Amino acid sequence: MKLIHLSDLHLGKRVNEFSMIEDQKYILNEILRIIDEEAPDGVLLAGDLYDRPVPSAEAVQLFDRFLTQLAERKIPMYAISGNHDSVERIAFGSQIMSSSGICMSPVYDGKTEKYCLTDSYGEVWIHLLPFVRPATVRHGLEGEEEVDEIRTYQEAVQAAVAHMEIDKRHRNVLIAHQFVVGAMRCDSEEISVGGIDQVEADVFRDFDYVALGHIHSPQNVGSEHIRYCGTPLKYSFSEAGQQKSATVVELLEKGNLKIREIPLRPLRDMRKLKGTYMEITSLSGYQDTNTEDYVQITLTDEEDIVDGMQKLRTIYPNLMKLEYDNRRTRENQEIAGTETVKRKSELEYFEEFFELQNNQPMNEEQRKYSEDLIRKIQEVK
Amino acid sequence: MKLIHLSDLHLGKRVNEFSMIEDQKYILNEILRIIDEEAPDGVLLAGDLYDRPVPSAEAVQLFDRFLTQLAERKIPMYAISGNHDSVERIAFGSQIMSSSGICMSPVYDGKTEKYCLTDSYGEVWIHLLPFVRPATVRHGLEGEEEVDEIRTYQEAVQAAVAHMEIDKRHRNVLIAHQFVVGAMRCDSEEISVGGIDQVEADVFRDFDYVALGHIHSPQNVGSEHIRYCGTPLKYSFSEAGQQKSATVVELLEKGNLKIREIPLRPLRDMRKLKGTYMEITSLSGYQDTNTEDYVQITLTDEEDIVDGMQKLRTIYPNLMKLEYDNRRTRENQEIAGTETVKRKSELEYFEEFFELQNNQPMNEEQRKYSEDLIRKIQEVK
Repeated sequence: MKLIHLSDLHLGKRVNEFSMIEDQKYILNEILRIIDEEAPDGVLLAGDLYDRPVPSAEAVQLFDRFLTQLAERKIPMYAISGNHDSVERIAFGSQIMSSSGICMSPVYDGKTEKYCLTDSYGEVWIHLLPFVRPATVRHGLEGEEEVDEIRTYQEAVQAAVAHMEIDKRHRNVLIAHQFVVGAMRCDSEEISVGGIDQVEADVFRDFDYVALGHIHSPQNVGSEHIRYCGTPLKYSFSEAGQQKSATVVELLEKGNLKIREIPLRPLRDMRKLKGTYMEITSLSGYQDTNTEDYVQITLTDEEDIVDGMQKLRTIYPNLMKLEYDNRRTRENQEIAGTETVKRKSELEYFEEFFELQNNQPMNEEQRKYSEDLIRKIQEVK
Repeated sequence: MKLIHLSDLHLGKRVNEFSMIEDQKYILNEILRIIDEEAPDGVLLAGDLYDRPVPSAEAVQLFDRFLTQLAERKIPMYAISGNHDSVERIAFGSQIMSSSGICMSPVYDGKTEKYCLTDSYGEVWIHLLPFVRPATVRHGLEGEEEVDEIRTYQEAVQAAVAHMEIDKRHRNVLIAHQFVVGAMRCDSEEISVGGIDQVEADVFRDFDYVALGHIHSPQNVGSEHIRYCGTPLKYSFSEAGQQKSATVVELLEKGNLKIREIPLRPLRDMRKLKGTYMEITSLSGYQDTNTEDYVQITLTDEEDIVDGMQKLRTIYPNLMKLEYDNRRTRENQEIAGTETVKRKSELEYFEEFFELQNNQPMNEEQRKYSEDLIRKIQEVK
């Protein structure tokens, strides 16, 4: 059983005010080319299909085209909604389209959809868990005994998984969109300060493969069979050094798994350049590169270049960011640096504020109350 | 061949700040009940499925539920986008869903979709023309000779119809969403000042039945076989006296048509009440009525009732509008009345403004220029 695992398309995304739609169109075509070469038995799409709950009309058209081309190829696709997607909008037409092999997660109501594929080793069950928050699961499981105790993401995912029907004699694949403890983040993800959205990898022990979305760098978490495939495109300069890829999962007999990464080559790369203005603008410095790439340039000249952005764009039309690394900025950085070394939790920020206002630290009761409140706010947003 | 013709659902609409979603859910269930009784060969949905290009999540869910229930019944549905809909959003999944008999108009690209149904008399072709503006058709037909001459709605629809493949030996049904000359409007429609969006009924001469949407009152236009079925619910008090309905069209042998209206009974009616405060609030006046209806009350008392809205809502919780008809308001009305007798076109308003600014009327060249400009603005909005 060969499956292609993708996630975090973020269709319609803008990066530093540049629309990515053309790059996304290109990479979806590349993915289709890979699908034609690999001839998988199914495609898994682990959430954040769009960048916003209400995507632009052109993003909707682009995704429609991709789904239609998969349906024409008769390759089943299994997709879930991520934290960037509107569950109700993603669910539109899901029941009708599932008969054509396009299976999208419905709104979570305590049950999850599962689909069966078979090969010579037997059945493979694909379980679809859309992105859930504690409140989503509490609402979905309303009326059951333990519901009120679901307060953390860990408890939410645990409860959702506990309510799935998993026949452990067969192979089981889960598609999910959550933050698993230990995963390495980068700048383009939506970060939950304080890490309250973390889920232990152990929650997924009953699955033979977990196709994850949410984190933008391709990586295994904890074990080989729990994996983020990453975005198909670089969405921030913190990803400049990454090789984006599609993950190919081959499920052999139960317990035996093969994983491969197929590199994805973008229309335009995202790169960081550093040097003096003279170096950056010298023909020998750029003549064998794709100057259409999205670039961040760090100039090391001591004096700022007048109209630098404009001048550099004559060579690099898609210059996204211009920075300086010289005595002036290094001094600024050092001051800012000490402040941001540690990422504070919302509670810590609030504690500081409280102390500033009241000239005394919070007591235990106040801390507990604030912590609960912050958690509640986090859940409903 | 029995078809049920519906239009202008406007799912997600708010009327005087009241959400209609519960009423819409109820009426869609009523429509499904009628469909079960009538067992039609198909359902025609002539545009304005939603009230806004970006409908609310609950409106999307409601429409999804309706489509899913039709698909389960294996009754094909043919829908087009109206001026309130986003063509790209409506088109999402259209190709995939069409294999399940849910056929939605794609973005207009110079071609229109058609579907074939058959009965003992032979073939019936259902043609889907989404709402088009002159600019839509020009864009769709780009590269063809006469394109630049498409400036009016009449020319746009004419060109779009001319590009359809209509085999006149068979029966042909068109679903369209345009304003046909002679149709009677009401307050809840989006009005194009000056009537530049008008289309002559003669454009549709090659069709055996034209299922129209756009106008909210059920009515034939010009001939029996060109018809607006109207909204399933009342969306303004100007429609209070109307009986809303679904239209049943039976196509017998070519040239022979039977049309019936099936009354739609809403969860809550929309009614106008008029009388003194004493009359309106006397038990005998309302005891046999549904006080949950959406009402507009016109009080005839000479003195305004203190906190009238609040007091009347204890009896009529869904009171939408409170007006007075007494000496005070009649005098105001008379003054306002003379001003609004005639609906002016945008050009006329602009001419008045021009004269005010320049102390002289427009000359012919200026009028021509303004007219062109207004038309262009109308098209792109």
